[in-house]
Amino acid sequence: YAAKARENLSDTKTLTPPPPLPMDADAVVVLGGDGTLLSVARQVADRDIPIVGVNLGGLGFLTEISREHCFQDLDRVLSGAYDIEERMRLRVALERQGREVFVQTVLNDAVINKGALARIVDLDTHIDGRYLTHYRADGLIVATPTGSTAYNLSAGGPIVYPTAQAVILTPICPFALSNRPIILPASSRIQVQLDDKAQDVTLTCDGQVGQRLAPNDTIAVVMSPHSLKLIKPASTDYFDILRTKLKWGQT
Amino acid sequence: YAAKARENLSDTKTLTPPPPLPMDADAVVVLGGDGTLLSVARQVADRDIPIVGVNLGGLGFLTEISREHCFQDLDRVLSGAYDIEERMRLRVALERQGREVFVQTVLNDAVINKGALARIVDLDTHIDGRYLTHYRADGLIVATPTGSTAYNLSAGGPIVYPTAQAVILTPICPFALSNRPIILPASSRIQVQLDDKAQDVTLTCDGQVGQRLAPNDTIAVVMSPHSLKLIKPASTDYFDILRTKLKWGQT
Amino acid sequence: YAAKARENLSDTKTLTPPPPLPMDADAVVVLGGDGTLLSVARQVADRDIPIVGVNLGGLGFLTEISREHCFQDLDRVLSGAYDIEERMRLRVALERQGREVFVQTVLNDAVINKGALARIVDLDTHIDGRYLTHYRADGLIVATPTGSTAYNLSAGGPIVYPTAQAVILTPICPFALSNRPIILPASSRIQVQLDDKAQDVTLTCDGQVGQRLAPNDTIAVVMSPHSLKLIKPASTDYFDILRTKLKWGQT
Amino acid sequence: YAAKARENLSDTKTLTPPPPLPMDADAVVVLGGDGTLLSVARQVADRDIPIVGVNLGGLGFLTEISREHCFQDLDRVLSGAYDIEERMRLRVALERQGREVFVQTVLNDAVINKGALARIVDLDTHIDGRYLTHYRADGLIVATPTGSTAYNLSAGGPIVYPTAQAVILTPICPFALSNRPIILPASSRIQVQLDDKAQDVTLTCDGQVGQRLAPNDTIAVVMSPHSLKLIKPASTDYFDILRTKLKWGQT
Repeated sequence: YAAKARENLSDTKTLTPPPPLPMDADAVVVLGGDGTLLSVARQVADRDIPIVGVNLGGLGFLTEISREHCFQDLDRVLSGAYDIEERMRLRVALERQGREVFVQTVLNDAVINKGALARIVDLDTHIDGRYLTHYRADGLIVATPTGSTAYNLSAGGPIVYPTAQAVILTPICPFALSNRPIILPASSRIQVQLDDKAQDVTLTCDGQVGQRLAPNDTIAVVMSPHSLKLIKPASTDYFDILRTKLKWGQT
Repeated sequence: YAAKARENLSDTKTLTPPPPLPMDADAVVVLGGDGTLLSVARQVADRDIPIVGVNLGGLGFLTEISREHCFQDLDRVLSGAYDIEERMRLRVALERQGREVFVQTVLNDAVINKGALARIVDLDTHIDGRYLTHYRADGLIVATPTGSTAYNLSAGGPIVYPTAQAVILTPICPFALSNRPIILPASSRIQVQLDDKAQDVTLTCDGQVGQRLAPNDTIAVVMSPHSLKLIKPASTDYFDILRTKLKWGQT
Repeated sequence: YAAKARENLSDTKTLTPPPPLPMDADAVVVLGGDGTLLSVARQVADRDIPIVGVNLGGLGFLTEISREHCFQDLDRVLSGAYDIEERMRLRVALERQGREVFVQTVLNDAVINKGALARIVDLDTHIDGRYLTHYRADGLIVATPTGSTAYNLSAGGPIVYPTAQAVILTPICPFALSNRPIILPASSRIQVQLDDKAQDVTLTCDGQVGQRLAPNDTIAVVMSPHSLKLIKPASTDYFDILRTKLKWGQT
Repeated sequence: YAAKARENLSDTKTLTPPPPLPMDADAVVVLGGDGTLLSVARQVADRDIPIVGVNLGGLGFLTEISREHCFQDLDRVLSGAYDIEERMRLRVALERQGREVFVQTVLNDAVINKGALARIVDLDTHIDGRYLTHYRADGLIVATPTGSTAYNLSAGGPIVYPTAQAVILTPICPFALSNRPIILPASSRIQVQLDDKAQDVTLTCDGQVGQRLAPNDTIAVVMSPHSLKLIKPASTDYFDILRTKLKWGQT
């Protein structure tokens, strides 16, 4: 999708160029951090290839195998001692004058936000065709449960267990103090429309692929039919990672 | 359940005594506020009677028919123009020395909190048998999506769409600043255990039925097999109520 | 003050009985945690005795000398290598039917909060005689800069540099989501009045001395004329303590 | 200052071009919103001219005279029935390679923030020459008490009474969840330094004058010697405005 969209649009900017991916792979081992895995996940978009992540740096939410346990854990995975965790993804489409001009499948989030010099962004939001509200804010995050511990957390959103079926809508620095994060059913159809004066507003997918927006653009987000298959070594535990990354439990 | 439990325990305190409920009702019309509806909902615990709420005061999250539209909306409901919305509930059990000594079915929330003079409460929390974390806080809220707009919201938790399938875990004034609200799958089995020095700690169900806790008590929370059937007149809209109650969208 | 008040009131409960203090001390060395220092600080209420705190446990915001550096730091202090930091305190008075029935000088905070079974507390608040707002909340914290890193922080309040001249007003789980913490000039006269239906509401001073409140009680808080003199060894730095206690700066 | 700086720097962008101001004015009546008053305030930077604001739209925090009471209130002011409120301001200087290349006097805030496509900004912060912390965030706000109800509030900062003497440091969407807003004494000297890889980072003064930053730039903020004199009609009350703007006290 992305490649096609990029031909038409001069404004698209890919922050992390994705590596090429062989067509006949059974599984992909990602060496790197969560960012690398996100990029690979977009590459496997609609294919059914499971991914396993080895973290070369610290500890990741997605890359759950650490460098030191790398060979041991991969041995186990090859011998069949693993689970496959299905992580829901979002299909993010940019609609301009009635046409889809840009489509991405994201594992973490789609973020609409204003540039540094813009004052505020005005966003009309509909859920399943019903009016939700008008956000005046620095931006708006639409996140998956997997993405809940990424940008969403910094913006004040809640942690959502990664295999939960839900979509998170978190405004960034909203003008109205009562504009709290909202958790919607995974089946929700979310539409976010810019007003006719919008300028210097960007859509960013998984923090990596950016797309400059134009006045009256609409961002339509639904659950992707293609979940990501994440290979989990038997030894890893989400709550362990959570406690470590968020420094819980140490007085 | 509650009646039986209350025979055994001298500490139970029902803040709002529930009204008696005929056994052969087809539906219940609740006149009052959200509190009254919560109380009636506990009364119909495992029976399949749908409820419709008429708000005699302002506007409620649960009692969606206002006084002025009362007859008109009830007429419509009687003529069949309504939806039934299934709201998930939680089965809350207090386990003491291996026995269940108190059980409630809640529509909003179960709250464990310290008394005014206690300093802090220490709570060990497990999800599906796996260790989540140790909370040091004023208390802990376990809420349904319906209850997300009640106490949970004041304590910093997110709004969860009422028909979503999820459980919310929100610490009250936690000592660790990174202890954010967590959204868990509806199927989660949540266990919260007090330490052996706990004193002046109370379990409150739907803000109405209180139970004094003892050291080492465990609160076990699972989704109730009995959802609540809420009759919704065709005219009501959740986002409308949200915008009005939270004063969104006005300048 | 406290002693006199306690004669009249049967409801006062001192959680940590303060140790006796000789009248002719030049300085007090407190061995213990921050709680012990708070208790000693109340004892020296209107006397001009400087205090130095040695922390026997971890690290404290107030007890800045650690166990291992204890003798070395105390040696330096005795040889004159120290600063005296003046920490502002609050005079907290409970007025009932026009009379002051209870007075405390606090270094951290005065907290008005509801009991575990009470639903909410209604508080009318005036600043220098002008109406501020009506709080509906679990409670209200009036804190000094020194107390900003105590209960105030858990309730969502900001960090205030300890020698700043300011008073912090932080509602606990407020019903209105836009009820944010407010910083007032140190000279402000704060009056918080309970309504005529209040029950199960408590005033707690520095988390240690509790006083049951009655309907229509007024809590009047002003800056105490007696600041606390805290002896600071040359080696200690507030930002160091902040980073360590709040786990900043570690990825 | 601004004019001189602008000659040297091609990146400066003034969002709201300030109106010319006669040199011999006794007072300035600003017709417009808070934005207009901020712009005029920067124009009177080091002169001693008091300002009065008439709000042509809704209600402003700074423009306290409403359209309907305009003539009546101005009559009173001309007859001497007013107070002058001194609002502290900040002197914001951009230091590059040891030279001040850009200086502004702000009434509300100086904001350092990343562009829409940048991931995060890394900021080393010192207070009075002592290391505070390293922020990883979308940005950092340095606000006056007057500016506390502007961007600071959206970013999670507290309300600070406008005549208090304090500076507020509020990170925008910080990576570390325990990075809370900090209130510093008005006399503090704040230094914020970008790292050597910084790109797409902007300094914005009062939301109106923007300046593109370069790697290793330092922003130095101190209290301005020139406070703003704000003419206040006898009838206005800060808490009234606060309750109205933040929608407190209704239901």
